[in-house]
Amino acid sequence: MEKRNELYAGKAKSIFATDDPDLLIMHFRDDTSAFDGQRVEQLARKGMVNNKFNAFIMGKLREAGVPVHFERLLSDDESLVKRLDMIPVECVVRNVAAGGLCRRLGIEEGRDLNPPTFELFLKNDALHDPMINESLADSLGYATIEQLATAKRLTFQVNDVLRQLFLDAGILLVDYKLEFGVHKGELLLGDEFSPDGCRLWDANTREKLDKDRFRQGLGGVIEAYEEVGRRIGVDFG
Amino acid sequence: MEKRNELYAGKAKSIFATDDPDLLIMHFRDDTSAFDGQRVEQLARKGMVNNKFNAFIMGKLREAGVPVHFERLLSDDESLVKRLDMIPVECVVRNVAAGGLCRRLGIEEGRDLNPPTFELFLKNDALHDPMINESLADSLGYATIEQLATAKRLTFQVNDVLRQLFLDAGILLVDYKLEFGVHKGELLLGDEFSPDGCRLWDANTREKLDKDRFRQGLGGVIEAYEEVGRRIGVDFG
Repeated sequence: MEKRNELYAGKAKSIFATDDPDLLIMHFRDDTSAFDGQRVEQLARKGMVNNKFNAFIMGKLREAGVPVHFERLLSDDESLVKRLDMIPVECVVRNVAAGGLCRRLGIEEGRDLNPPTFELFLKNDALHDPMINESLADSLGYATIEQLATAKRLTFQVNDVLRQLFLDAGILLVDYKLEFGVHKGELLLGDEFSPDGCRLWDANTREKLDKDRFRQGLGGVIEAYEEVGRRIGVDFG
Repeated sequence: MEKRNELYAGKAKSIFATDDPDLLIMHFRDDTSAFDGQRVEQLARKGMVNNKFNAFIMGKLREAGVPVHFERLLSDDESLVKRLDMIPVECVVRNVAAGGLCRRLGIEEGRDLNPPTFELFLKNDALHDPMINESLADSLGYATIEQLATAKRLTFQVNDVLRQLFLDAGILLVDYKLEFGVHKGELLLGDEFSPDGCRLWDANTREKLDKDRFRQGLGGVIEAYEEVGRRIGVDFG
């Protein structure tokens, strides 16, 4: 399997073609961004940590029957994935209120959400990822109603798997965002699952162990990611 | 039927108790507000125009089988309505893109929305009526999933009735917001339907004939409301 030209550079990952048109290489860079890309910093080891974290989680999800684009680790900071036509929508499940939800709706951080909530956002930095819904996505052509129903079902299935996995390690899965894409007609979980795209709090102390450490200037960002990884069983080598 | 104390004063209407605990009086004032109440002006005849406009529309909706709180006109600027426990959610249907949707999603005003879209907003001026969805409303206790399903069905039923009614008068029903409440266990359409809470464009010229004339300082606000009313058959006396 041969690595070819770069197809796309996102805020934290770059995507490369391979000699197989159905497969791509995801390169996890050390770049860390916040506030729709307005702030970007390099954090040592981040690419490796997130690559291995994501590989571990995607393996667990695949075992649980969630269809994922992830194929296998290639190197410390590269993974092989299936090529997807991405749906430009972020699917968010929240178990506990935090972040944007609290600002938008004036509710206190830490409030339990029961049942867990589901939201859709349009993936668009210039517009600051505005909230949408199934009806808008359908009429404006972002995704079909059927795709969004499948994405919602899978996003909650991920919650069933990961909430318990983290809780067994003494960690609260507060919220997370997932992205999906279509490969040969099938909707697959794409992108990544890492502490960059979710909130993880120590279940006892409620200490933040995710990208909010970067957003809020708390320091110890990658150390926290590694701590979570070690607790759930990620092998960082 | 005796008018008693004022129970509530909103931005454009005041609500009074009556000697019947199941009935209230809605008083349409001349106040016109925009930008979450930051701008308020008095516009002559507005209370009368909106009261009679609303009475006409509510009558048409009731004839079509939509359950409404409206009972009957009491005077030029007062109507008798059933008492509701209001659900703090605005239901919005759009046939054509305009206003906040265009700003939020970066789409051009005037784009046809097919199928028409449905959105929910939390009624909260201080938070600028943030967009929500069924899942958030349920988990945060704003409304039940069942109430929102009924409200959605009724909001689209209103579209079926009013889109044609306006089109027959050469007017495009661009979008509108409805509010619902519970009376003796039944979900009823509450609040009002007037050019304050919808967008109406001349079908040929696309001239705005609604509250955007006020928001955008175009003048001729009440004259436009009266023009729409006359075209659809409202008797302003």
